[in-house]
Amino acid sequence: MYSLPRGVDAERELANILWNKGFAVIRGPASGAGTRRRFQPDLVIIKSGKVAVIEVKRTSELPVYIRPEQVLGLSEFAKRAGAQAFIAVRLKGRKWLFFRLDEVKTTRRGGFKVEGKGIDLNGFIVDVLGFKKLTDFM
Amino acid sequence: MYSLPRGVDAERELANILWNKGFAVIRGPASGAGTRRRFQPDLVIIKSGKVAVIEVKRTSELPVYIRPEQVLGLSEFAKRAGAQAFIAVRLKGRKWLFFRLDEVKTTRRGGFKVEGKGIDLNGFIVDVLGFKKLTDFM
Repeated sequence: MYSLPRGVDAERELANILWNKGFAVIRGPASGAGTRRRFQPDLVIIKSGKVAVIEVKRTSELPVYIRPEQVLGLSEFAKRAGAQAFIAVRLKGRKWLFFRLDEVKTTRRGGFKVEGKGIDLNGFIVDVLGFKKLTDFM
Repeated sequence: MYSLPRGVDAERELANILWNKGFAVIRGPASGAGTRRRFQPDLVIIKSGKVAVIEVKRTSELPVYIRPEQVLGLSEFAKRAGAQAFIAVRLKGRKWLFFRLDEVKTTRRGGFKVEGKGIDLNGFIVDVLGFKKLTDFM
């Protein structure tokens, strides 16, 4: 039994979680639509002018690898927006981990990856974005 | 000769214009994908933490009509994001006009529409969003 969702379903799952916590959430158009003039992140979340831009990855175990154009695109988008940038990793069991873009590591072959403990969903919302605890919304 | 682009092409045109002016721009997923749990605006543009959320319409002449769920969705999204909300109208000849969401009028039948002079592209960027003149980027 393979319990990882499809990429688009993982994005939708996280979008719904954050929307239900009161964020404005927008998902980018489907990936892989050929050459693009503009980088389109998977998710942008906003609350009261505070912006986070997110690439969503799913994996059964870390590390997870990130394409160079995603790292560069995310960085450029975040700079324009004045946003924080993250890689959100969907693991089995509906578990999410968040990594800041500046925690991304280079591989020996010059690629990019994230690994390590990361930040859990609650920590992401409360500590990173500075919003109320999840329980305050319940 | 019908010189209006398809809806998706109008969105892409405006996204490219604004991206080239230095904004972070994200287009929502294609419309009409059935029932949605979250409202997805056509465009969200961000610069240095300042956010505008936009529904794109195209028409050969004003007024242009807006569905109630778009007005409500845009309003809710803008409130969550701390954003300004606009209807962007693409007319013939690559002409764009912008209307603030609070300028939307009700029709006699209880629908919604925009009409009137609106704000042109340069005014939208300079006066409304408070950024530099287009010529400053050239």
